[in-house]
Amino acid sequence: MTGIDDLPVRDELRGKSPYGAPQLDVPVRLNTNENPYPLPEALVERITERVREAARDLNRYPDRDAVELRTRLAAYLTDTSGYEVGLANVWAANGSNEVIQQLLQTFGGPGRTAIGFEPSYSMHGLIARGTGTGWISGPRHEDFTIDLPAAEKAVAEHRPDVVFITTPNNPTGSAVPAETVLALYEAAQAAKPSMVIVDEAYIEFSHGASLLPLLEGRPNLVVSRTMSKAFGAAGLRLGYLAAHPAVVDAVQLVRLPYHLSAVTQATALAALEHTGTLLGYVEQLKTERDRLVSELLAAGYEVTASDANFVQFGRFEDAHAMWREILDRGVLVRDNGVPGWLRVTAGTPEENDAFLDAVREIKKEQGS
Amino acid sequence: MTGIDDLPVRDELRGKSPYGAPQLDVPVRLNTNENPYPLPEALVERITERVREAARDLNRYPDRDAVELRTRLAAYLTDTSGYEVGLANVWAANGSNEVIQQLLQTFGGPGRTAIGFEPSYSMHGLIARGTGTGWISGPRHEDFTIDLPAAEKAVAEHRPDVVFITTPNNPTGSAVPAETVLALYEAAQAAKPSMVIVDEAYIEFSHGASLLPLLEGRPNLVVSRTMSKAFGAAGLRLGYLAAHPAVVDAVQLVRLPYHLSAVTQATALAALEHTGTLLGYVEQLKTERDRLVSELLAAGYEVTASDANFVQFGRFEDAHAMWREILDRGVLVRDNGVPGWLRVTAGTPEENDAFLDAVREIKKEQGS
Repeated sequence: MTGIDDLPVRDELRGKSPYGAPQLDVPVRLNTNENPYPLPEALVERITERVREAARDLNRYPDRDAVELRTRLAAYLTDTSGYEVGLANVWAANGSNEVIQQLLQTFGGPGRTAIGFEPSYSMHGLIARGTGTGWISGPRHEDFTIDLPAAEKAVAEHRPDVVFITTPNNPTGSAVPAETVLALYEAAQAAKPSMVIVDEAYIEFSHGASLLPLLEGRPNLVVSRTMSKAFGAAGLRLGYLAAHPAVVDAVQLVRLPYHLSAVTQATALAALEHTGTLLGYVEQLKTERDRLVSELLAAGYEVTASDANFVQFGRFEDAHAMWREILDRGVLVRDNGVPGWLRVTAGTPEENDAFLDAVREIKKEQGS
Repeated sequence: MTGIDDLPVRDELRGKSPYGAPQLDVPVRLNTNENPYPLPEALVERITERVREAARDLNRYPDRDAVELRTRLAAYLTDTSGYEVGLANVWAANGSNEVIQQLLQTFGGPGRTAIGFEPSYSMHGLIARGTGTGWISGPRHEDFTIDLPAAEKAVAEHRPDVVFITTPNNPTGSAVPAETVLALYEAAQAAKPSMVIVDEAYIEFSHGASLLPLLEGRPNLVVSRTMSKAFGAAGLRLGYLAAHPAVVDAVQLVRLPYHLSAVTQATALAALEHTGTLLGYVEQLKTERDRLVSELLAAGYEVTASDANFVQFGRFEDAHAMWREILDRGVLVRDNGVPGWLRVTAGTPEENDAFLDAVREIKKEQGS
């Protein structure tokens, strides 16, 4: 039987597995940082209206430049951050993964390198591999915050073309202070002209503010975002970025023409009309996230500070065994491969109760 | 003012422009090979039903493996070609451009090369550039058919990792005989283990049959398809491929997880329920395409044989001046940069009449 290794695939792909969390049929799924709240019915209806309109013109290519969508995304960013951005500052694609892929095709690629401070969002490194960009794993402190002196040293030494900073960081949870980002931006530019990508996928859940205002006067800085989390639309696959207009012009040199379908654009526009309601759910989730943190501590677990819709908890001698123990109780959390730690997504109050019951029970059994 | 060249973009992108036909507001648009027939209203309603259902679960990630969609696409291919393929043989992505990008990330990339026989679909070369794959421009006869001995020689000499064969070819129009594809497959394998990608974007409009049966016993062959043309769904961005299951496994090593949104999957599934109606439109377009060919000949133009939903016509000392003359009469056709030739998409009978009136009038003026 012919398998992958019998095909002329690239050497670096041999023996690899596709990225993706196990998709298991479990009562409580708290493993992929999805928003547990379905879209409100009024929004579902607005989506169908917008998609009906788009479907009547579906024989035509979609707006290649997604002008209406980018304009509305810019307004959302301006409204929520107080920092004004417009159409020319915003670009959108099929998930922030595609945004990052386009950025690496433009500013990374063969003969170039990117650095990330790990553990962090593992797709950064995987997309680097997929685009032929060399990957450098940068350091963190033991408490998972960025070790700035060590990070600056790594940047000076490796002179990467692209620097990733994820804030709030996934899977560890805490936000990165603006001063750290600024220092790394300066260090990166001192080493060589390079792009700094601030991945704010979870920023709406943060105790602190977006770093969008740092874009002022920094054309080599990019802030990436997604509608998967705060907008409760993981199924939509809509990622976007804000940056200097030259960056938006540059990624258009590598974007596939008409990459964003008419139904995706229509659905995203509908969701943006319901921003207020959706951000209301975010507030509920922040409360639940804080409850998870305090209850996990009360139950005797360690947690890392969280500004996201998930909590990293530990420590476990065998994190995967603990993952399995929780799964045996009907709750799916995520083993991101961080030794000693697991990650749980903030779900509905009922889902979180089920999770907390499970981990309390496990603690009790282990204590006895 | 900071521009692209002030950013640290890759050297090969400097001075380049984004791909894309001019989007002009013209009464008759016959420039991007769109299907002129809007989806039937019953299908529009079915799309809204399916999307409503998907929207109620939009807070969850979509089916990462698009199992239902790939199963239905496989059934469509089996029904229309008589060659049986199943779920394991089919992969889908956001437009055939993304399918091709994934194939080049898997089988091309840095240090590898791809060959196409030009003029052909120019995105093949552009996606090669975007993935770091070296591009080789292979030869054609003066009548735009593939010059097989010269093509075999080019393959033997350059030993490409990927060979593109577009059939029917875009923008020239004619289908490639199965024997030519087989000969090139053999030549390619003799040079080195390599993938042969048969791009059948326009196959439903062909006088001949699909080359899907050639997949039998050839794990290094891929057939790519799209719903943009025959399904009248350019706005949907749904491309797919059929190949040995090992190829489908391999592209999953580079695909971005959850690349295909829930609304895209829902819309495509609805369209596949209406295949019969949509293929009826294809028959009308084939008749119109044949009428364009005969009327262009009758008006004193040259045409190249067409198996697609467009016709290449000429010859012009200055094709771009002719493109402008036709545009001045309210009809937008495509200047693909093939010296001496232009391309017109088969539209509705009324649109084609407007085009034919324009080119007859121009001929009359030039004759006087």
